Amino acid sequence: MKRISILGSTGSIGRSTLEVVDAFGDELSVAGLAAGGNLELLAEQVRRYRPELVSVRNERDVAPLRERIGSGVEIVHGTDGASAVASLDSANCVIAAIVGAAGIAPVHAALVRGKRVAIANKEVLVAAGDVMTRAAREHGGEILPVDSEHNAVHQALRSGTEREVARIILTASGGPFLRRDLATFGDITIDAALAHPTWKMGNKISIDSATMMNKGLEVIEAHHLFATHVDQIDILIHPQSIVHSMVEYIDGSIIAQLSATDMKFPIQYALFHPDRRDSSFARLDLAKIRTLEFLPVDPERFPAVALAYAASREGGSMPAVLNAANEIAVERFLAGELPFTGIVELVSRVLERHAGNVTAIDTVADALAWDGWARNEARGIDVALAR
Amino acid sequence: MKRISILGSTGSIGRSTLEVVDAFGDELSVAGLAAGGNLELLAEQVRRYRPELVSVRNERDVAPLRERIGSGVEIVHGTDGASAVASLDSANCVIAAIVGAAGIAPVHAALVRGKRVAIANKEVLVAAGDVMTRAAREHGGEILPVDSEHNAVHQALRSGTEREVARIILTASGGPFLRRDLATFGDITIDAALAHPTWKMGNKISIDSATMMNKGLEVIEAHHLFATHVDQIDILIHPQSIVHSMVEYIDGSIIAQLSATDMKFPIQYALFHPDRRDSSFARLDLAKIRTLEFLPVDPERFPAVALAYAASREGGSMPAVLNAANEIAVERFLAGELPFTGIVELVSRVLERHAGNVTAIDTVADALAWDGWARNEARGIDVALAR
Repeated sequence: MKRISILGSTGSIGRSTLEVVDAFGDELSVAGLAAGGNLELLAEQVRRYRPELVSVRNERDVAPLRERIGSGVEIVHGTDGASAVASLDSANCVIAAIVGAAGIAPVHAALVRGKRVAIANKEVLVAAGDVMTRAAREHGGEILPVDSEHNAVHQALRSGTEREVARIILTASGGPFLRRDLATFGDITIDAALAHPTWKMGNKISIDSATMMNKGLEVIEAHHLFATHVDQIDILIHPQSIVHSMVEYIDGSIIAQLSATDMKFPIQYALFHPDRRDSSFARLDLAKIRTLEFLPVDPERFPAVALAYAASREGGSMPAVLNAANEIAVERFLAGELPFTGIVELVSRVLERHAGNVTAIDTVADALAWDGWARNEARGIDVALAR
Repeated sequence: MKRISILGSTGSIGRSTLEVVDAFGDELSVAGLAAGGNLELLAEQVRRYRPELVSVRNERDVAPLRERIGSGVEIVHGTDGASAVASLDSANCVIAAIVGAAGIAPVHAALVRGKRVAIANKEVLVAAGDVMTRAAREHGGEILPVDSEHNAVHQALRSGTEREVARIILTASGGPFLRRDLATFGDITIDAALAHPTWKMGNKISIDSATMMNKGLEVIEAHHLFATHVDQIDILIHPQSIVHSMVEYIDGSIIAQLSATDMKFPIQYALFHPDRRDSSFARLDLAKIRTLEFLPVDPERFPAVALAYAASREGGSMPAVLNAANEIAVERFLAGELPFTGIVELVSRVLERHAGNVTAIDTVADALAWDGWARNEARGIDVALAR
């Protein structure tokens, strides 16, 4: 029996993870759950999966949750709470699906205890990738990608050795604005930006997909996961999101991974790796899909991509700043404080302010310090005035 | 230095193999060459690559070839000659690219000497697959697929274990008649049938692509290469011939291999496996290709496919009979003796005559005996009268 802790259990990835648990009821069970503010769903999950420990984001939610679930399960809260869930002795595997930099400390806690972390929380690797990969190396922990793109790369990499890889090709749906007239980008509404064409996801990642900052963050994530320089990582637009990513080998062979657009597939892979397990989730039927398209990325339409590459080449604290500034920019866009095009503009301005002050990120504290600095900066900049 | 013998050196695969030798001049050299009737090109290859031994199909060609190449290289002929080229002590690897059943004895000769056989000559496995895989197993020989489809499957199979394979999906271009009006199939000319839309190949395989008997033979070939029942092998039409084939795993992941449509890629792979080597052959650019299509196979348009599945399910001598009857049917179509639709009709009639007499194929002699029987039958049937 594998026991798993889920960080972000009420989100999209968390719920899909629990569906995988349902499908493998005699092999998977839940050790701990950490969630944000959706107490109703969290209480339901606690009653159903009977974890040892549950954590909520805010202390004020402890009592209302206690009221809903009764006694018998310990409730903790905040980052320390999530870290406790990630560190449970009984958990073999931690699903890291908290949105944003809030996942940094809990993921690190799991890795230093030598656990497998199935990571969907890309911001952790973007902001503190070197810290995480070192923690895994030194303590026998393991990072397995749950993002469909990186999961595809992980599978494609099995067809050759590390030295035989020419480049990684991450596919990108292109989001809702792939074909929108550039002249109308100023009028993009929040609803339009949230309407992702192929994946149903949380708000933050949906907006990141619309700007393609998501793909930029994934390039940096891939750099850490696969020890590959970002200049060996390319992006190809693929609107159908069927080919989840590819690896080109030095001999000209490209190995691609395809599946239905359902996160249960990569979650199941990450939970059972190195084994593959039979499952009944609806399969891909290529003859029904019929057409797969591939297009180059238009840098004018998606300026976030170049920002991410530049931040990764700069290295050190720059990607952490990029990530934090982007989180705030998305927050401010969703709050109606910024136009859509202001997201990348705001991030860009924070990066400019950081240039010249880039330092190494050696600890979780380093990452969190720069994360905090960038958030403050991003909150303080008036984008309308800054133009 | 790897030394290779090439069976079928003047054909399309043979010439591509020599281009790979050119590209890796300090690692690959030529031990022996066997060819058919193109003496001009064979003489040029002998002068350039200086093999130890060269074989021509017919004894009458020995003297004219000697005249062209002078002394210093031994010349042999016929099937025994090709087998001698395949058996050379100095050859580590044999490229088997003779067309048709003529490759059976030479390939077997190489395998019982424990050599690696990079096989493009699918008829060998179709007619005598069990004999070949047993010879490889018992003598430490190795069969590596050069057909782009099977080579793709070989690469895709590296992403999981044998027990984790749900099915193999061979892609098929659909050939020149994928979209032709079925009512006009009676009017198909030889030139039209030879005009393959994506691959430039020899005549036999071009016609086999037009009927899709080629894909049927490949299903049987895959069955032997990967020890997979034909009912776990599916065909998907993919007109662009970019995705060379796929493997679906039990967890719903599909692993695909893609490359430019150039046989040098699978040849190089088969020569260097398990290593991948850098090469300068023009790479695939998916953003230029833009669109990949996938369609189901229409059994009415391509009746050869069902014949091949049925022959494989029947097993024993039936696939050898299928293969031999098809070789003669294609020959007779190219000689103007049969209409295009007569090819499958003729094969079907020979299979009917063999039903009830199916025996096991335990030796090369068994395979050749049934091969001979089927050829005779196929030559004797008047398809026009038989309707």
